Amino acid sequence: MSHTAGRTILASTIAKQYTEEVTQKVKELDFKPKLVGFLANDDPAAQMYANWTEKTCESLGFTYQLVKVAKNDLENAIVEANGNDGVNGIMVYFPVFGDQQDQYLQQAISPEKDVEGLNFLYYHNLYHNVRFLDAPINEQKSILPCTPLAMVKILEYLGIYNKHLPYGNRLYGKSILVVNRSEIVGRPLAALLANDGATVYSADIDNVQKFTRGDDLLMQRHKVEELNYEEFKPEVIAPQCDVVITGVPSEKYKFPTASVANGTVVINFASAKNFNEDIKERAGLYVPSIGKVTIAMLLRNLLRLIENKKIRQSK
Amino acid sequence: MSHTAGRTILASTIAKQYTEEVTQKVKELDFKPKLVGFLANDDPAAQMYANWTEKTCESLGFTYQLVKVAKNDLENAIVEANGNDGVNGIMVYFPVFGDQQDQYLQQAISPEKDVEGLNFLYYHNLYHNVRFLDAPINEQKSILPCTPLAMVKILEYLGIYNKHLPYGNRLYGKSILVVNRSEIVGRPLAALLANDGATVYSADIDNVQKFTRGDDLLMQRHKVEELNYEEFKPEVIAPQCDVVITGVPSEKYKFPTASVANGTVVINFASAKNFNEDIKERAGLYVPSIGKVTIAMLLRNLLRLIENKKIRQSK
Repeated sequence: MSHTAGRTILASTIAKQYTEEVTQKVKELDFKPKLVGFLANDDPAAQMYANWTEKTCESLGFTYQLVKVAKNDLENAIVEANGNDGVNGIMVYFPVFGDQQDQYLQQAISPEKDVEGLNFLYYHNLYHNVRFLDAPINEQKSILPCTPLAMVKILEYLGIYNKHLPYGNRLYGKSILVVNRSEIVGRPLAALLANDGATVYSADIDNVQKFTRGDDLLMQRHKVEELNYEEFKPEVIAPQCDVVITGVPSEKYKFPTASVANGTVVINFASAKNFNEDIKERAGLYVPSIGKVTIAMLLRNLLRLIENKKIRQSK
Repeated sequence: MSHTAGRTILASTIAKQYTEEVTQKVKELDFKPKLVGFLANDDPAAQMYANWTEKTCESLGFTYQLVKVAKNDLENAIVEANGNDGVNGIMVYFPVFGDQQDQYLQQAISPEKDVEGLNFLYYHNLYHNVRFLDAPINEQKSILPCTPLAMVKILEYLGIYNKHLPYGNRLYGKSILVVNRSEIVGRPLAALLANDGATVYSADIDNVQKFTRGDDLLMQRHKVEELNYEEFKPEVIAPQCDVVITGVPSEKYKFPTASVANGTVVINFASAKNFNEDIKERAGLYVPSIGKVTIAMLLRNLLRLIENKKIRQSK
């Protein structure tokens, strides 16, 4: 018998329904979708992640091709893959240059093959709570970046999204702390959850912002307010939050367990362990990592890109 | 009488023909074009630059409106200006957040109003040596980022571009050192000059790359080769270069004058002085700053955006 009141939920458990859904949908296609991953760094972690993407792809019925390429040849390789009808999805293992050139490369992937949802178009739609690519017809759904999307699916699974509320407002009344405000995950995640109705405290290294659609969700999309750091820093705001989400990419960083109220839902999306083991004595539901859900979302995005293309071609 | 063999050329001298051209073209329009500048930081230097933009705009026949806005309201303000028919051009005084969110905001400006040429579309065209927006009709010229474009115009003025060579190859045979490889100026500048036929040595803090279209300019666009830093660092490569261009944003940095061969063309685009006064004893032509040409290019881009819009509307 467990000694704690709460439970640890593994990403594999949450991912299961999505990997099943994806596997089923692939079977219904008349071809095997192909994902190309570009590796242009020597990072063994990226190589491991690539191996793991390959394994997942192949096991679910996709074709995966890892292309190793020199940093300075990457853009050309992306442009070629953009124009190659045999390639359905493209991803790059970042960082490549580790500077702003990586943002340039991110935009070089055609939105039509951007399985990670990194294109400005998709981030813009996320921030502006625009859910379709073809308003007002609204047939082609916009793509969401994989990690924020995985977080939504995890919160749905855990029952934080309340199905009794109208679609689009299902986080109404929930307070969520997100520790990380990177442009890739933390900021879009805060916006996405706020757009779904939550009050989100988005913490960066030395400041905290509040993302909401206003007290009554009257706004169509979120607004951002700067908060006083001392009054709203993570350990001060955490006790009032229903959900605490961390994504600090450092093995040294540990979220202060003592500030987490008993029964809080706790999720870590960093590859580093942002919580000590004693978090299990506090957390209601604890999800220590989310990678397997993220990769399911990647393949789900790939299928959505294929679907969107089909809709465009049928016009 | 001057004690040096070379000459210092001021940006105002080079800008003159372009400010005249711009003033003439504005007169031919049946409306007064409007540029909106968004200021969302407290940097006095940005405020000064804004004042200076305003002065130049008004004196050449444009309307300029400075809009001060809170950082977190900037994106909405940009989106509104994108949709406002009374606004012809939009610029933002960066940095705003000083992190990757600035790259997001940069993309938020509609390409149709992006006077600074910061949109991915324009950078992509620059890197790929694509000069029109509407191939194969080729009526709408692509926009070039202001500072790299200003540099091209300066090099044309100084006679480094050779008019006897075919258009597109007019830097053939020229070796150019560019010290700065920022994503905003240094890297696109190196690519642009290489695409026009030069051999460009692009120096970053601890590495040097060579940008060329191959020995015989057989390539349609440049390639990038990594060089051994010790063999090709700025002070080693400078003596062989026809042109030395610097853009190091630090008052402490000084390019080593002794490494510049007599008669070299020397241009500094940083707001900091990258050369000591003794450079005048070495340089053939020395351009100590380029701001006035850059701002002329900004207004030239604004007129080009208006022209492109007219062409689209006439279809």
